[in-house]
Amino acid sequence: MANQDDQFKKVISHAKEYGYVFPSSEIYDGLSAVYDYGQNGVELKKNIREYWWKAMVQMHENIVGIDAAIFMHPTTWKASGHVDAFNDPLIDNKDSKKRYRADVLVEDYVAKLEGKIDKEIQKASKRFGDAFDKEQFVSTNPRVLQYKEKGDAILKRLGKSLENEDLADVKALIEELEIACPESGSKNWTDVKQFNLMFGTKLGASADSAMDLYLRPETAQGIFVNFLNVQKTGRMKIPFGIAQTGKAFRNEIVARQFIFRMREFEQMEMQYFIKPGTQKEWYDYWKETRLKWHNSLGMGEENYRFHDHEKLAHYADAACDIEFKFPFGFKELEGIHSRTDFDLANHEKYSGKKLQYFDPEENKSYVPYVLETSIGLDRMFLAVLSNSLQDEELENGTTRTVLKIPAVLAPTKAAILPLVKKDGLPEVARKIADDLKWDFNVDYDEKDAVGRRYRRQDAAGTPFCITVDHETLENNTVTIRHRDTMEQKRVQIEELREIIKQEVDMRTWLMKI
Amino acid sequence: MANQDDQFKKVISHAKEYGYVFPSSEIYDGLSAVYDYGQNGVELKKNIREYWWKAMVQMHENIVGIDAAIFMHPTTWKASGHVDAFNDPLIDNKDSKKRYRADVLVEDYVAKLEGKIDKEIQKASKRFGDAFDKEQFVSTNPRVLQYKEKGDAILKRLGKSLENEDLADVKALIEELEIACPESGSKNWTDVKQFNLMFGTKLGASADSAMDLYLRPETAQGIFVNFLNVQKTGRMKIPFGIAQTGKAFRNEIVARQFIFRMREFEQMEMQYFIKPGTQKEWYDYWKETRLKWHNSLGMGEENYRFHDHEKLAHYADAACDIEFKFPFGFKELEGIHSRTDFDLANHEKYSGKKLQYFDPEENKSYVPYVLETSIGLDRMFLAVLSNSLQDEELENGTTRTVLKIPAVLAPTKAAILPLVKKDGLPEVARKIADDLKWDFNVDYDEKDAVGRRYRRQDAAGTPFCITVDHETLENNTVTIRHRDTMEQKRVQIEELREIIKQEVDMRTWLMKI
Repeated sequence: MANQDDQFKKVISHAKEYGYVFPSSEIYDGLSAVYDYGQNGVELKKNIREYWWKAMVQMHENIVGIDAAIFMHPTTWKASGHVDAFNDPLIDNKDSKKRYRADVLVEDYVAKLEGKIDKEIQKASKRFGDAFDKEQFVSTNPRVLQYKEKGDAILKRLGKSLENEDLADVKALIEELEIACPESGSKNWTDVKQFNLMFGTKLGASADSAMDLYLRPETAQGIFVNFLNVQKTGRMKIPFGIAQTGKAFRNEIVARQFIFRMREFEQMEMQYFIKPGTQKEWYDYWKETRLKWHNSLGMGEENYRFHDHEKLAHYADAACDIEFKFPFGFKELEGIHSRTDFDLANHEKYSGKKLQYFDPEENKSYVPYVLETSIGLDRMFLAVLSNSLQDEELENGTTRTVLKIPAVLAPTKAAILPLVKKDGLPEVARKIADDLKWDFNVDYDEKDAVGRRYRRQDAAGTPFCITVDHETLENNTVTIRHRDTMEQKRVQIEELREIIKQEVDMRTWLMKI
Repeated sequence: MANQDDQFKKVISHAKEYGYVFPSSEIYDGLSAVYDYGQNGVELKKNIREYWWKAMVQMHENIVGIDAAIFMHPTTWKASGHVDAFNDPLIDNKDSKKRYRADVLVEDYVAKLEGKIDKEIQKASKRFGDAFDKEQFVSTNPRVLQYKEKGDAILKRLGKSLENEDLADVKALIEELEIACPESGSKNWTDVKQFNLMFGTKLGASADSAMDLYLRPETAQGIFVNFLNVQKTGRMKIPFGIAQTGKAFRNEIVARQFIFRMREFEQMEMQYFIKPGTQKEWYDYWKETRLKWHNSLGMGEENYRFHDHEKLAHYADAACDIEFKFPFGFKELEGIHSRTDFDLANHEKYSGKKLQYFDPEENKSYVPYVLETSIGLDRMFLAVLSNSLQDEELENGTTRTVLKIPAVLAPTKAAILPLVKKDGLPEVARKIADDLKWDFNVDYDEKDAVGRRYRRQDAAGTPFCITVDHETLENNTVTIRHRDTMEQKRVQIEELREIIKQEVDMRTWLMKI
């Protein structure tokens, strides 16, 4: 656990030091759970977005994009269920004035019971040594059984109360368990209240004509309300998909884990419109297709796993996550949801307009079913960054910090370095940079010894360093150094474009899918 | 004027019909002055954004990007002047309950006087025929002189009142001129009040810890607060630039003209940090550079003009617009502003932190001056769309509607069309599409007669149609048809990629700058 924390802290500080992620409004001491992407971060983010878009939209004849506004008509969120159901149960401590998620307070209490079980296991393990049979111990030790039973009972009751919206019982549970405010130690609680997670604002200046708006909590609804516009003007035939990337906003009470859970974040979503009854088939198809996309980046197949949802959201008849091994453990990176006709049918109901597709093969109209793939761009960013950051021990006993970002996503593709700042080498290097920049993001760097510049580019994630030396003046060759292997090869200057292109072109990587 | 209106209406309806722009939340009867970009619109928008980014960031060694959050610390907007000065003077009519911009009411009154002058001119012109000397007439006719004098006096008084924030006098002016509510005809007005144009929201759930936030009204401040983070981690030396694209929000009272003035819009801004005293030189440089960028798209040099600001904003010591000839006349497309050290100095003051650059050449620290280029992505979109839409009369007497979008920006680069839907032609066509889609957005279309498909692709703005016919089966050639000239050539299938690339590659277009 300590190691995980250390690695995560390293990622966060590296992200700042190398211009990937800055705390937002840092000169004003920051804004909680909001971050800005720096000069390298913006390029990594763009490249991830583009890699997704290319794979989803450009490569699929039957998937098109849209870009809907963040502001939507407020009835949208009635129809989607967000006004009524997008809530967290909150409770205030009257002494500390601190507000908590009531369910999290209870869950933390249960986590403590689990901690006690772990301690019993450790004690017993020490006592019995090699003879210790953990499974037998936890299934027979009375104290462990008692903790486990208690924890299970609490979670069951909590689940039931939340499902029935019996918030009085959630409060009763907190009081029965004698849960105290972590800050003040006080057990003086208010009632539990539902708190909606959408950010509100007002459109229009006139007091009597102002309209209560929400910042969209998900991009999906922008696709649903445009479903017929796109289908008709784009002459789409089912099955077809509409893809979108864009900002969404959630007023999370506990936003944490760096850019993993932010109040303002970016989604990359695709809604696939299908014939009712075919959802199982498409669910399997998109699970497989999306996992292949992730694996095409070569960040280690062992770092991904599916997690099927046992408790389904109100709109879904099947759902799973693709989880990624973040520094803090396996967590959701992408969701794949069979949303049925929940959204379109509700928009029909609330708008009074037909949202049906006429199927020429079936010769009838129906409300399509929807299969959704939804990935958090910021989470994907964190996955790439944390997976790429490595401290390597070198043969000569020193270490280097290297950011092994997949070359297709790397912010800067190549750095052009004159070996020394004289003898005409900078001029040649700059000419190479000026030529390559038409096709790639490149960096020109002449400061410090070349070894130090290599280290800097390694840490920034640049896949190639191209060094201009005195031999260059004789035969137009340069060395090209690969970030990951540190191997250097001598090549002709005119070969550079093709060598780099081969390694960083999306085409090369997408072909692996 | 009627023609302009007609042309503008045509653009709006074409934008919807071909999947460029849909009214937002249309199934809920729309949301005023908010629009969604459809399947073609999203690609055009992406291409404009990318063309700007490539020209500004990738091609300039000393310009880098960032992507700051929409949410910023609220003190940011104190420092920038938006909390105090980003206001419109509003007035309500007590009978109709309608709200108006007080200055616009007065300006509309003056516009009516100008209309009267025009009428006098027309009458006289008819009376005198060829002998009519307009200049002499307007400088001597007593009625014209009277209107002109009155209008000038009103505008002068309005300007002075607004400058002195003497809102009582603005109301007095409205009453003296006996301006009536355009809706109710009533002259029963409230006082004039300043109304802030920022959208507000609340961060955090707890009532006592909730923070009043604004949706950023401009992206520029995200750059200023990150100035030192980028300069230090990116080892930037003055002069250098930071570029950003992203959403901004303004609660405009009168939002209109389609996507020209929206409440939610996207900016593409670059802030160039320079040594104090060099601002004039950089102002001229960026005026020229930005105009060249526009002209590289070949939309007609006569459609752009500079408009110098006479009245400068509080932060500027020089400012101009690049205006474009929209269907409703020349209007601002891009702004170029010499912002001095206004923003950074104010952020120093409000944050208590130093925002200075140590200049190694001068061996001293200073707050840099800033030169800004700021373009509205949605306006640029409208410029491209309205400039491209043309009804052409053909030699055979028929007309065609064609969207002559610069090929580098076109949403779909090529459509692959089998001449007929049999004889194996669809299979060959699909194979070509499947091959080309690795590099370009392409469309496969087999429905309707080929002439009709050509028209459809013309109207959608696709630069190339590639037709597979029976000869293709014999010798692997296809015809390639150019959207603008309608010329068709026979080429080898394997040549297609290079032919298209040559015409649509950003490199080809950027080289014209």
